[in-house]
Amino acid sequence: MTKVIRGIVAYPVTPFSADGGIDDGAFRCVTENLLRSQPAAIAFLGSAGESAYLTEEEWRHGARLGVETVAGRVPVIVGIAELTTAAAVAKARYAREIGADMLMVIPVSYWKLTEAEIFDHYAAIAAATDLPIMAYNNPGTSGVDMSPEFLVRLVRELDTVRFIKESSGDLNRMHAIHKLSDGAIPFYNGANHMALEAIAAGASGWCTAAPNLLDDRPARLFDLVQAGDIVRARALFYDILPVLRFIVVGGLPTTVKAGLALRGLPAGAPRPPLKPLVEADRQKLAEFLAALRVEPAAA
Amino acid sequence: MTKVIRGIVAYPVTPFSADGGIDDGAFRCVTENLLRSQPAAIAFLGSAGESAYLTEEEWRHGARLGVETVAGRVPVIVGIAELTTAAAVAKARYAREIGADMLMVIPVSYWKLTEAEIFDHYAAIAAATDLPIMAYNNPGTSGVDMSPEFLVRLVRELDTVRFIKESSGDLNRMHAIHKLSDGAIPFYNGANHMALEAIAAGASGWCTAAPNLLDDRPARLFDLVQAGDIVRARALFYDILPVLRFIVVGGLPTTVKAGLALRGLPAGAPRPPLKPLVEADRQKLAEFLAALRVEPAAA
Amino acid sequence: MTKVIRGIVAYPVTPFSADGGIDDGAFRCVTENLLRSQPAAIAFLGSAGESAYLTEEEWRHGARLGVETVAGRVPVIVGIAELTTAAAVAKARYAREIGADMLMVIPVSYWKLTEAEIFDHYAAIAAATDLPIMAYNNPGTSGVDMSPEFLVRLVRELDTVRFIKESSGDLNRMHAIHKLSDGAIPFYNGANHMALEAIAAGASGWCTAAPNLLDDRPARLFDLVQAGDIVRARALFYDILPVLRFIVVGGLPTTVKAGLALRGLPAGAPRPPLKPLVEADRQKLAEFLAALRVEPAAA
Amino acid sequence: MTKVIRGIVAYPVTPFSADGGIDDGAFRCVTENLLRSQPAAIAFLGSAGESAYLTEEEWRHGARLGVETVAGRVPVIVGIAELTTAAAVAKARYAREIGADMLMVIPVSYWKLTEAEIFDHYAAIAAATDLPIMAYNNPGTSGVDMSPEFLVRLVRELDTVRFIKESSGDLNRMHAIHKLSDGAIPFYNGANHMALEAIAAGASGWCTAAPNLLDDRPARLFDLVQAGDIVRARALFYDILPVLRFIVVGGLPTTVKAGLALRGLPAGAPRPPLKPLVEADRQKLAEFLAALRVEPAAA
Repeated sequence: MTKVIRGIVAYPVTPFSADGGIDDGAFRCVTENLLRSQPAAIAFLGSAGESAYLTEEEWRHGARLGVETVAGRVPVIVGIAELTTAAAVAKARYAREIGADMLMVIPVSYWKLTEAEIFDHYAAIAAATDLPIMAYNNPGTSGVDMSPEFLVRLVRELDTVRFIKESSGDLNRMHAIHKLSDGAIPFYNGANHMALEAIAAGASGWCTAAPNLLDDRPARLFDLVQAGDIVRARALFYDILPVLRFIVVGGLPTTVKAGLALRGLPAGAPRPPLKPLVEADRQKLAEFLAALRVEPAAA
Repeated sequence: MTKVIRGIVAYPVTPFSADGGIDDGAFRCVTENLLRSQPAAIAFLGSAGESAYLTEEEWRHGARLGVETVAGRVPVIVGIAELTTAAAVAKARYAREIGADMLMVIPVSYWKLTEAEIFDHYAAIAAATDLPIMAYNNPGTSGVDMSPEFLVRLVRELDTVRFIKESSGDLNRMHAIHKLSDGAIPFYNGANHMALEAIAAGASGWCTAAPNLLDDRPARLFDLVQAGDIVRARALFYDILPVLRFIVVGGLPTTVKAGLALRGLPAGAPRPPLKPLVEADRQKLAEFLAALRVEPAAA
Repeated sequence: MTKVIRGIVAYPVTPFSADGGIDDGAFRCVTENLLRSQPAAIAFLGSAGESAYLTEEEWRHGARLGVETVAGRVPVIVGIAELTTAAAVAKARYAREIGADMLMVIPVSYWKLTEAEIFDHYAAIAAATDLPIMAYNNPGTSGVDMSPEFLVRLVRELDTVRFIKESSGDLNRMHAIHKLSDGAIPFYNGANHMALEAIAAGASGWCTAAPNLLDDRPARLFDLVQAGDIVRARALFYDILPVLRFIVVGGLPTTVKAGLALRGLPAGAPRPPLKPLVEADRQKLAEFLAALRVEPAAA
Repeated sequence: MTKVIRGIVAYPVTPFSADGGIDDGAFRCVTENLLRSQPAAIAFLGSAGESAYLTEEEWRHGARLGVETVAGRVPVIVGIAELTTAAAVAKARYAREIGADMLMVIPVSYWKLTEAEIFDHYAAIAAATDLPIMAYNNPGTSGVDMSPEFLVRLVRELDTVRFIKESSGDLNRMHAIHKLSDGAIPFYNGANHMALEAIAAGASGWCTAAPNLLDDRPARLFDLVQAGDIVRARALFYDILPVLRFIVVGGLPTTVKAGLALRGLPAGAPRPPLKPLVEADRQKLAEFLAALRVEPAAA
């Protein structure tokens, strides 16, 4: 049985160099910075990692580099977000080959998918490797909305689908997953702006790019709620909330890359059509980080 | 300075007799039942009290009967939900005359209101009495949606507007009220389905009709979160969640009256076009209450 | 069989005098102005008539005054928008007594209504008089959304419910009503901003307050589409569209009263909390009317 | 100056053979079938063409095959829907090389794009070739919603962006484009379910996959409205509406391929995770086509 990850699942951005390709050195620095944030796991090539904007070869390179850099210090999760089942299966196999520990799989739609279509998409990926899978729901970015009932069914009917990540931002979904599985299926919060409440509601973890900028504050928030210190948890949550909201509203690659540069850890620009953060927003982010006494990232 | 209410604000239904008028005896029984649920306050003539369906004379009768029955045991809040400012002012004055302790005011729209129109509506009501006012936002039933910024402005600019009740079900609103006022403005949760999380987020209280059916369980939930016993709080919350959701989804007057009848405390039917709960749903509610070992209400 | 109304159903505002009551003289002037706009019928006490903001006595006065003023020159429709079935039935009976020709009935919700509840609401009103009824769907103002299937069922199962007014602004609804009834149930468009298209789609008429400000332009638009002169219909529609949109976005009572004052036909202010149109918007409306060469209303 | 296309812009599906690749023979048959439907232009590799599911090489093959098959009989438009600007520019250049007449460009988002980001995306594509461009708005499939103001700005500021395709299904958008440009910018309707009304509102054309199944009926509808024969136009529209709605609700590749098979022109299955139409829906589509007396497609 897979060990359940409890705590923070940290998401790196994918740094690009001036010529537009992946910057391996910066990639390693960004990863080391995250490893200092007390994560329970690191997830490469998720939304924050601009996975959707990479070529297939870049994706493979990033996955391999991630596994090598982490080198077993924490479990490595690899994100798979593909329109076609064939491409998703190929990536799953590759992730297995290079030694990833888990897959996080989100269906992506151009044409709306039926539940039968989504189910078979997951089934094909699950059949391709023995890696445990986190089913990931994020209708806002993927265009696919999976109900709690369907997500629980995926876990029940597909052996290696064992975890759920919910990023719809709807507490009712988490409540429903908990009730439908009598608390037995670990679910993870992917909505930064309600991290305090999701942990209170029983989330096993919090999937977030925030540690890139906030170091171990997310991990401390998780621990405070677990310890029942609701007063200090609440105070910490409200302190970091402006940053949590800012990075989501402005788009994770854009804002996190700007914040990393402010911390002395340049990760390049996001890939066009995405643009670097505009100056007024960069100032605002700098003020948020200063108010929290966020320090430069170690080299 | 008004004492801040902390804990449960309990909402009675308004019982009708077979001829359609207010049933005074049942009204008193419903109120006594609520008083046994450890409420911090009781709020008459809110949404659950079918306020919108009463004639003006009935409304006055209900308000008076409420104040008399509670007889100072806990603070009494009276709900005001009027389309015209003139009618709202008249009700505010009446509530003051009969000895109510606080007003809960929600603007109601047929035609969409501008913020200037809503502000002056509150200002006129505030000017009519010296009673403290809870500004109440519930876009789903009232058709008016007041932003956190506007609600905080109401509290800052109108002396007697001191509290905010948020029923939009959006955690972001509570976070915003907390941040905008540095935690200084007490806010109350009006969304049953997220009570656990709203209390975790710092709500001063929970406005709910649930104690009609769940006795002191809501009060215990509130206390458990305050005490940092997040594990038992979560367990209690998930236990009562089916009832919390059921009474909201089915409409409070309809479902709570059905539940009270199941508990041996008949409160009549809701007023047409509202109908009594259909039999299949009544069975489901009975099962929910049985699973929680809810006992008959004391006579 | 009721004669089918074809063309414009014109909606007057309800003028108030300085002391806040209904201004009978202005009421008659507003009505006469509408009668000059080539309407197929006039509908009193609809949304534009601030019906929801009137006391019961004022409503009766307005209905009676409307019937008397029109004096049979065109059919008179009276609007009924009540939360309780009892109040709606009482108004239906009164409308019959004073000689109205048709009822336009919209259910209003505070608590969400089931279809069974809405159906019985209509059935009770239909049973109260022999007047033909137009079932009116306007979820935006009433909080009740009736599907095309349900509306067609109302017409099929209740003898005197014979017409449908659709104000949801969704063309699919009109298409569905047409298909479900093989074109046999007359439906009316209540969404000003898509009048051209609704008439093209087969609406029997257009329910609108626009003739208060635009005289017979709406009637001409209706006739041009019927005559197949799509080029001139389109040109006229785009000409008047800024006014059509303006009066809806700003709220009919507020904007139409401002526009009538600009035309030399003062109808007082809307009832608080509604406020008179702000000056900047009044200027904009004046420009729109000037661009269309709208003339002062005849005395 | 580019000649304005008036009438039907027809969209083929992309047929796959049993091994999953593009089926050249079927591709040519599908194209010839469309050429018999009186189209004003043919648009390859749009939404209906499963463009998003093709590899880059397949996309190039499809574009080339399309241009070759049409062989100048009508203008050929090629669809470009890419997440990265670099990929979009490369496709634009390729389309120019192979002799396409126009580009239809829709931005696609994973991360929400600012208007500055969308503008530069279009600017880069426009700078890459001299082909005229149709800016295409379809928030439902692409995740990007461009306002009428922004679309008009694109046309004004970028020389080769000359046309707008609106598929949001919101009549207000078409009205706004017409008003903002005084009728000077040709706009095209991409929402099948409101084709009658969009043409009445002044659309220069209708972009649709419907001719695959309905032959010249869409072209006749367009002509009837232009001719002012609103009665026959309406009758034809209501006749074909069930098919228009069916193919959109069920997803164009899935339903159109099923319909082509029913007509004796097999185009294979859509690409997984998309599945062939389920049997019950295939039956329903067969009935719709039979009711319209749609004949087998010519070989």
